[in-house]
Amino acid sequence: MTTISPAPVRTRPALIEALTVPKGFGDQTLRDRRADAIELLGGIPDASVLPSTELAEATARVLAAPGAPSLQYSRTEGIPALREWIAAREDVPVERVLVTNGGFHGLSLAVQTVLERGDLVAVDNPIFPLFLRGLELSTDRILPIRVGRAGLDLDELADRLREGARPTALYTVPDFHNPSQSTLPTEQRRQLVSLAERYGFTVFADNPYRELRFRGEQESVEPFHDSDQVIHINTFTKTLGPGLRLGWVVLPAPLVPDVVALRSRQDSHSSTFVQAVVAELLTSDPTLFDTTLDRARALYRGRADALAAALEAEAPGAFEIDAPDGGLFLWPRLRDDSIDAERLAADASDEGVEYQRGSFFASGPGTDSDRRIRLAYGDTSEEKLVEAARRIGRALRRQTA
Amino acid sequence: MTTISPAPVRTRPALIEALTVPKGFGDQTLRDRRADAIELLGGIPDASVLPSTELAEATARVLAAPGAPSLQYSRTEGIPALREWIAAREDVPVERVLVTNGGFHGLSLAVQTVLERGDLVAVDNPIFPLFLRGLELSTDRILPIRVGRAGLDLDELADRLREGARPTALYTVPDFHNPSQSTLPTEQRRQLVSLAERYGFTVFADNPYRELRFRGEQESVEPFHDSDQVIHINTFTKTLGPGLRLGWVVLPAPLVPDVVALRSRQDSHSSTFVQAVVAELLTSDPTLFDTTLDRARALYRGRADALAAALEAEAPGAFEIDAPDGGLFLWPRLRDDSIDAERLAADASDEGVEYQRGSFFASGPGTDSDRRIRLAYGDTSEEKLVEAARRIGRALRRQTA
Repeated sequence: MTTISPAPVRTRPALIEALTVPKGFGDQTLRDRRADAIELLGGIPDASVLPSTELAEATARVLAAPGAPSLQYSRTEGIPALREWIAAREDVPVERVLVTNGGFHGLSLAVQTVLERGDLVAVDNPIFPLFLRGLELSTDRILPIRVGRAGLDLDELADRLREGARPTALYTVPDFHNPSQSTLPTEQRRQLVSLAERYGFTVFADNPYRELRFRGEQESVEPFHDSDQVIHINTFTKTLGPGLRLGWVVLPAPLVPDVVALRSRQDSHSSTFVQAVVAELLTSDPTLFDTTLDRARALYRGRADALAAALEAEAPGAFEIDAPDGGLFLWPRLRDDSIDAERLAADASDEGVEYQRGSFFASGPGTDSDRRIRLAYGDTSEEKLVEAARRIGRALRRQTA
Repeated sequence: MTTISPAPVRTRPALIEALTVPKGFGDQTLRDRRADAIELLGGIPDASVLPSTELAEATARVLAAPGAPSLQYSRTEGIPALREWIAAREDVPVERVLVTNGGFHGLSLAVQTVLERGDLVAVDNPIFPLFLRGLELSTDRILPIRVGRAGLDLDELADRLREGARPTALYTVPDFHNPSQSTLPTEQRRQLVSLAERYGFTVFADNPYRELRFRGEQESVEPFHDSDQVIHINTFTKTLGPGLRLGWVVLPAPLVPDVVALRSRQDSHSSTFVQAVVAELLTSDPTLFDTTLDRARALYRGRADALAAALEAEAPGAFEIDAPDGGLFLWPRLRDDSIDAERLAADASDEGVEYQRGSFFASGPGTDSDRRIRLAYGDTSEEKLVEAARRIGRALRRQTA
């Protein structure tokens, strides 16, 4: 007779144990919203500047192709027509382009391909908080590096490296940083890459907003493409629509086989159908993408300026606001230190406007994030933005009146 | 002066180191193909039975919706309309349905959520070889269990468990097993689940072909839905098209939060656009899915029978062929032990027909896989299937004539 041991209790793998329950940013349970609440919560593109009609037309053409190849399997790297369009626009060899299911997917592939469990990762401070959640796939050890008005503080990074810090990777949003809206100048991009090469870490350059510049001169992404120490993460999310779930990474050539090996085991490849529709959209009318972007930029500039002006009108002198040059957020700072920022967010919610509290964005000490608020204006009309400013003004006066 | 240590050489994380280079099945470098080669390689649905026109019409309607919600972010679990359609068809609570990017993605989520590094996994023998590649995300320790004409050999499994084997999971294809085409009877499904509950392992029931039954009575999936020890992995790949990359898993309720936590960190959610188009397709005409399936079943039955008859006509007595009741493959066995099966595959390629050698599918000793060949007939016309049989007959006669 064999004695059967009792069925073991299920134990969760370490990978799953490391995934924490969302707190702060992204926690939908924080408060009840008013039915008429104006939500300035997320970097959501406006439906009016997404090419839905053209997407429907492209879909009809793609599905009418003999044998409907868009409904069949395709390669892990992406379909040639889309990769080639991306490679031409990025000015990199097509072999370095891997199509993804959007920017966050590109980040998760970078995290899983480059980082060993428990590795140290330098990160923006303040930071896009969802990156820290994705990072949990590999590690939770971070080295926060300040982001100022001129982008990532390379002096602080260089100091930490000189002192002996040895991150395996560095995460930053170089264009219209989320939440601070600063952009890293081209020369500083070169310095960052040079530090990465000297100290052997990989830069995760996360660039969802780069095409949404509505003022000033674009900084170059060339430094990110000239080094084997950078993964440049991009997406059609903010330009053609988050719901497509379509993006790409520009990889250093030596990393391509590793990312393909991982990706082919996780979900094989991005939807051939979505890839084919977007490739048809982009190549059938070579002006469409830039025309679409021009309309989007004009809309977002108008909204950014309208919201900044309305805040100043409704709460004169209360906020210091750097007018953004692009992107989808305002990051105003409360001038009066006696204002309780947490209470302000609660009062604003009560008045009927929802935004993200600045305190959600700090990745370490040393920033003024807790004196700021993040206002997303992408998908809200100017009229509603003015009303939102009015409500924030009323919320402020609950503390100052 | 601080001395700077030299930049470290990049070391690959253990996750990536574990991913092997494909050998055998899936290795595209095996041989040069003739330009006129007939490819019977993969389980590919025929374009003529995929609803491309209806998909284009559904897309037009979806993109014309005010505010085009299909282009926006959605929840990790999937959009309500699609989850509800799936839940109704599966007869499970909607909370247990998670939308995926196809069946392979469902498998990878199961592997990553349930298995700790180095865990033992019981697997079909012979097996769908790509599962073993996906399994490398967590482990390479397998316990092969024979699959016979009546499906997975539960006696062998029970013996191994009694002897002390303690797998964390078991992988099987219960309907129209790939490659052997056998189907596990309902009563044996109950026995399998009972073993899983007794010994505490999770069954990964991978079911891409279940809707393609063209003969006989469907076996029940209810046993898979009645236990917390089963993840039932499904996909629209073989019915609406692989290129959509859309599938689902029916999860045990206790596992839902873990799978959502993992998925939300890897690629957020499946394309809202693809989900919305397919939900519109399925719900706007409630008969469409079954009508589509009926057309597909009739086509595949005709092809399966035509190929079996042609093989017998072109190589009388050479193969033992179980006429399949569904699915997309024939799994003929060479009757003559003196035939060199590897040489036969090379000669067939030379004659202009490509198939998968049976030897690629063994996951351990004890099967006759190396005496078999896998012929995929899904996307090849009857006329070409007859020509393929003729070429296989010529290749055989190179050894027997």
